[in-house]
Amino acid sequence: MVRFDGRAADELRPVTLTRDFMPNADGSVLIEIGNTRVICTASVEEKVPPFLKGTGSGWISAEYSMLPCSCETRKQRDITRGKPDGRSMEIQRLIGRSIRSAVDLDLLGERTVWLDCDVVQADGGTRTASVTGSFLAFSDACQRLLEERVIPRLPYTEKVAAVSCGIVGSDSFLDLAYAEDSNARVDMNVVMTSSGRLIEVQSTAEGYPLARKKFDALLDLAQEGINGLFEIIKQAGYK
Amino acid sequence: MVRFDGRAADELRPVTLTRDFMPNADGSVLIEIGNTRVICTASVEEKVPPFLKGTGSGWISAEYSMLPCSCETRKQRDITRGKPDGRSMEIQRLIGRSIRSAVDLDLLGERTVWLDCDVVQADGGTRTASVTGSFLAFSDACQRLLEERVIPRLPYTEKVAAVSCGIVGSDSFLDLAYAEDSNARVDMNVVMTSSGRLIEVQSTAEGYPLARKKFDALLDLAQEGINGLFEIIKQAGYK
Amino acid sequence: MVRFDGRAADELRPVTLTRDFMPNADGSVLIEIGNTRVICTASVEEKVPPFLKGTGSGWISAEYSMLPCSCETRKQRDITRGKPDGRSMEIQRLIGRSIRSAVDLDLLGERTVWLDCDVVQADGGTRTASVTGSFLAFSDACQRLLEERVIPRLPYTEKVAAVSCGIVGSDSFLDLAYAEDSNARVDMNVVMTSSGRLIEVQSTAEGYPLARKKFDALLDLAQEGINGLFEIIKQAGYK
Amino acid sequence: MVRFDGRAADELRPVTLTRDFMPNADGSVLIEIGNTRVICTASVEEKVPPFLKGTGSGWISAEYSMLPCSCETRKQRDITRGKPDGRSMEIQRLIGRSIRSAVDLDLLGERTVWLDCDVVQADGGTRTASVTGSFLAFSDACQRLLEERVIPRLPYTEKVAAVSCGIVGSDSFLDLAYAEDSNARVDMNVVMTSSGRLIEVQSTAEGYPLARKKFDALLDLAQEGINGLFEIIKQAGYK
Amino acid sequence: MVRFDGRAADELRPVTLTRDFMPNADGSVLIEIGNTRVICTASVEEKVPPFLKGTGSGWISAEYSMLPCSCETRKQRDITRGKPDGRSMEIQRLIGRSIRSAVDLDLLGERTVWLDCDVVQADGGTRTASVTGSFLAFSDACQRLLEERVIPRLPYTEKVAAVSCGIVGSDSFLDLAYAEDSNARVDMNVVMTSSGRLIEVQSTAEGYPLARKKFDALLDLAQEGINGLFEIIKQAGYK
Amino acid sequence: MVRFDGRAADELRPVTLTRDFMPNADGSVLIEIGNTRVICTASVEEKVPPFLKGTGSGWISAEYSMLPCSCETRKQRDITRGKPDGRSMEIQRLIGRSIRSAVDLDLLGERTVWLDCDVVQADGGTRTASVTGSFLAFSDACQRLLEERVIPRLPYTEKVAAVSCGIVGSDSFLDLAYAEDSNARVDMNVVMTSSGRLIEVQSTAEGYPLARKKFDALLDLAQEGINGLFEIIKQAGYK
Repeated sequence: MVRFDGRAADELRPVTLTRDFMPNADGSVLIEIGNTRVICTASVEEKVPPFLKGTGSGWISAEYSMLPCSCETRKQRDITRGKPDGRSMEIQRLIGRSIRSAVDLDLLGERTVWLDCDVVQADGGTRTASVTGSFLAFSDACQRLLEERVIPRLPYTEKVAAVSCGIVGSDSFLDLAYAEDSNARVDMNVVMTSSGRLIEVQSTAEGYPLARKKFDALLDLAQEGINGLFEIIKQAGYK
Repeated sequence: MVRFDGRAADELRPVTLTRDFMPNADGSVLIEIGNTRVICTASVEEKVPPFLKGTGSGWISAEYSMLPCSCETRKQRDITRGKPDGRSMEIQRLIGRSIRSAVDLDLLGERTVWLDCDVVQADGGTRTASVTGSFLAFSDACQRLLEERVIPRLPYTEKVAAVSCGIVGSDSFLDLAYAEDSNARVDMNVVMTSSGRLIEVQSTAEGYPLARKKFDALLDLAQEGINGLFEIIKQAGYK
Repeated sequence: MVRFDGRAADELRPVTLTRDFMPNADGSVLIEIGNTRVICTASVEEKVPPFLKGTGSGWISAEYSMLPCSCETRKQRDITRGKPDGRSMEIQRLIGRSIRSAVDLDLLGERTVWLDCDVVQADGGTRTASVTGSFLAFSDACQRLLEERVIPRLPYTEKVAAVSCGIVGSDSFLDLAYAEDSNARVDMNVVMTSSGRLIEVQSTAEGYPLARKKFDALLDLAQEGINGLFEIIKQAGYK
Repeated sequence: MVRFDGRAADELRPVTLTRDFMPNADGSVLIEIGNTRVICTASVEEKVPPFLKGTGSGWISAEYSMLPCSCETRKQRDITRGKPDGRSMEIQRLIGRSIRSAVDLDLLGERTVWLDCDVVQADGGTRTASVTGSFLAFSDACQRLLEERVIPRLPYTEKVAAVSCGIVGSDSFLDLAYAEDSNARVDMNVVMTSSGRLIEVQSTAEGYPLARKKFDALLDLAQEGINGLFEIIKQAGYK
Repeated sequence: MVRFDGRAADELRPVTLTRDFMPNADGSVLIEIGNTRVICTASVEEKVPPFLKGTGSGWISAEYSMLPCSCETRKQRDITRGKPDGRSMEIQRLIGRSIRSAVDLDLLGERTVWLDCDVVQADGGTRTASVTGSFLAFSDACQRLLEERVIPRLPYTEKVAAVSCGIVGSDSFLDLAYAEDSNARVDMNVVMTSSGRLIEVQSTAEGYPLARKKFDALLDLAQEGINGLFEIIKQAGYK
Repeated sequence: MVRFDGRAADELRPVTLTRDFMPNADGSVLIEIGNTRVICTASVEEKVPPFLKGTGSGWISAEYSMLPCSCETRKQRDITRGKPDGRSMEIQRLIGRSIRSAVDLDLLGERTVWLDCDVVQADGGTRTASVTGSFLAFSDACQRLLEERVIPRLPYTEKVAAVSCGIVGSDSFLDLAYAEDSNARVDMNVVMTSSGRLIEVQSTAEGYPLARKKFDALLDLAQEGINGLFEIIKQAGYK
């Protein structure tokens, strides 16, 4: 049960958080988990989508994209291919949904927070790194809105973070790197609040449907992993 | 704990399966679950995507779309809007992934099976109805390939079906209708094989992150529901 | 002069009209003519295109599309190809123009009626079936507007219906099925009012330009055919 | 029955044909009918669409477009709007169909002739001018292929030309100018061969369905008009 | 140093200006420089882009396109390819920028002038011919606005014109024709005002970076060329 | 003549070069010039565009894009807007042309080098930083090809770098920051080889056409600036 990079089955890769990586954004972080690197930003726009006009409620919208050289093989840009990438759309919907789920949109007021996740380097787990980084960028943007007295208090009560885990061969591993992910028989992504409640669970069998018992154990592993990640986030100075 | 339509919490809506609804397809079914109606078809094309050429392996690709008048308010066509719908892309990726997960693509040989899900009427649960209907259409197409001796044996050993469930107020309900779904605090979609193994679990909190215990109970409810659905499918004559 | 399906030269295929096939639309019908099946719906939107704002006049706009498995060979979706289909655009322009031609748009008031024609199965004559079905769906939507006292009276005085006919070999046939249509040397589509006046005549030679005398006879055949169709529509309970 | 420009009801506007207007094309003409001006070109490409590969048969494909300032109000370019124009697609399908109908595609050999119609000034009748001009450009391109011994003989035996006519008020007029066309109650476009056979007849009621007798008279008027046009074409030196 | 068409190194090709070539535009010219022919039009729209609303300032926007048969090999239309042409976008940005640079947009008032350049025949120098022709069309449109007292005085004080020049082999030539341009080692486009001031200089080495001295001489050649062009414009009756 | 950030008129901002910033690319650099930050990568693909197949010659193609939060106001992604950005297309054409101009494409062999420039932060001069960074990434990719003996020798003999300069008020400044650039009356971008020869000169008047003498002085300033930049590049260890 030795992993290719020497990690224990339930061990996260090293995490680095470079806060305010993008000075023009209202909140931003470069999140690095092993070799996976994602720039996450939050930008506040004083406008909501048409379906929310006049409701007093705000909105959170996410976009996810990969730089062409973030992968081993150069990935063509969406605009060059002429159409959005299905996987990116699926991921950005997950990010937006996850953050919205932990936020009181009424407290945000009639404004939109745009969350942009741009993958600089992809080595597995970019979608969960994006969720985690997006929340950190979002919370910094909210902090700024609070300091500028644009909002009366923070629109969330719990933090949000996410990890991936999966089954490779017959082993359950936390935080799969690409070398593991590409051989995984099951891939699970979990988004959780700091009090341990589940926002999103996505478990996908890749040709290997999963017995319930194994599923439960995998979810345990993910939950412990996220608790570790919250610890790291706290130590990085995020209150 | 009485539901708006009188159902018990763990009760499916009535299911009707009109086999061979689309005579030009290789397999097809009109699946009706309550007022949700989806046309599912499977078409065999003697060609695979470039990344599989020469590998001997086949492919399964799904497309999901809603007729403009399937919803309460007319939905503009994607081609009129000029871009694909993010929700549809997410759903069709789920359908393709789910069916592929239960199929031995090598046994399919170098051919693609296109699964088309066109929603005629949407009253909650269209994505799980699409997964279930797609598998039925797919199995009929495979049956035909087998009869025509194009393939030596069926490329799957288990059936696949899916249901949705969710938490409305504080109640856990199976197979949400739209009236329930639009008020649900948690929405879960589960795809399972006939032997009870999990292909895909997607649990999404809508502003109400979920304690693990409640999550486990909801997944139990889904699994029982799918077992009921397999019973109905068998009675409808699908072997 | 025996036709492949035993019909007489001037005989329509069996017609079935399933009214209110789409409960969410304001008017709808599943029109079946032989194996050709089209879902036609009418949806009222309380809004007009910019060029009509403030004029008091309404608008009627049609969209036509084929389900991927409606044809013998699966047809790629427009959104997947990335551009609208030229034939579909030509047909939907014909449908909109035909219905508008029989309607007093001022009586409709400043609202748009969307006519959606989705071909479930294509066996020749889908464009004329779509015109006929669209008018039926439109008339049901108007009936509802009248009952709800949204409009003071029906905005049309005559019904509209359409048939195709053509020359196969040297024979003139009414209501071509696909097997005939694909071999036709001339293809004619005629839209007519219930008093026998011509809304649209489209005659197209496929490599066989047509003497005037033959043209006149073909148009006679179409006009008689539409009269028969109006009879069927009346018997189906449309006033 | 005096027309706004003094013409008789059955009188064409002055026609000018500037042959070889586009030296880079294989055949070309600037066709001017009154103030309507269209550049028509034919370009031979030694390649056919996939569905004809290996059949020995050629293809003819038409494209129609309007320069932004060809109309009274500047018309946005299709590429700026981001989607093809429905009316243009309808027209270019008519042009291609009409010319193909008079041509033996087998004699053309496996090559495509592209017909481009670019409207410089639009004053009614651009689609019929485009059909007429396209045929002239096409015939010049064929003449060149014949001279270069690429083809053994001309792939057509008859010329093709087209006119529009219509009913304004209660008068039937040949070759409508825009001032008339915009008030027409019926609009008819007719494509005919030089022996008087009908290739395409399109009659469209604009809110005024047409009695058969009036239809017949209008078609008579068109046919006489095209005969006059063939005379002009002959005098311009086209054999 | 004899050029392929017998011209001197510093000699322009013959220039023909057909004013008001497009009667529906507010100003227009067919500019012909040798075999290069471009239709340039100016259309006034009583509306500005959002970023100028309420500022009192006007805008000038250019679009450039080539007719399919303007080149030796037929060029596919942008809308058929499905995306804008990079070279066209670069050129139309140059045209708009160049004309705006010589115009007082405040004097224009809150309106947009659209400059459309449609290349009928391309034989080198289409972008500089487009700049020159656009200014002539623009000045005619302004003249009309002045005559109609829509603007109090002309919004420009100097004329604008442009030429290309380049180095072929080791020779510096003015106004390259396509045969020269396709072999040029350096290509320079210069836009200048009638008082000799430089609006835009674009010098591009095609595999042959240029010593400063040669650059300076080439720019001298262009400036003299534009002076000659201003002479021709004056003689054509443009004040 | 004091600049807003205290620089001398002919002084570059601080330059930082982080080599191999993108490990998956064949060559890469994060180039920082003041607050302007661009990730430049070079990726080798063993394939050329169709027009070069079989010629033995290689190709270099550039793409330029800005991260949404690189600007002060969030910039919508191209794929969300649905069309490529004109300014980006103009810039990426400049980058590709500039690098190709200094490279012997035959020595590259039949392969394409993709140059991707992704702007992380935009504070003026992103296009010239992109040219400079692209060449550095390109030269590292070539170095690798040489080491792997894929190419026999480096396909370039001189380095390439670029700077911007401009006139603000009546002062000529090197390397404009955004605060200066947005007020500049003239904007010049110059690409030069290490031997001082000019690859590309683009001078654009923003409402202030430029006398030749001033133009010459500005070009002098740019050339000196690029020489300084080459010094920095050398010191950073690029041979």
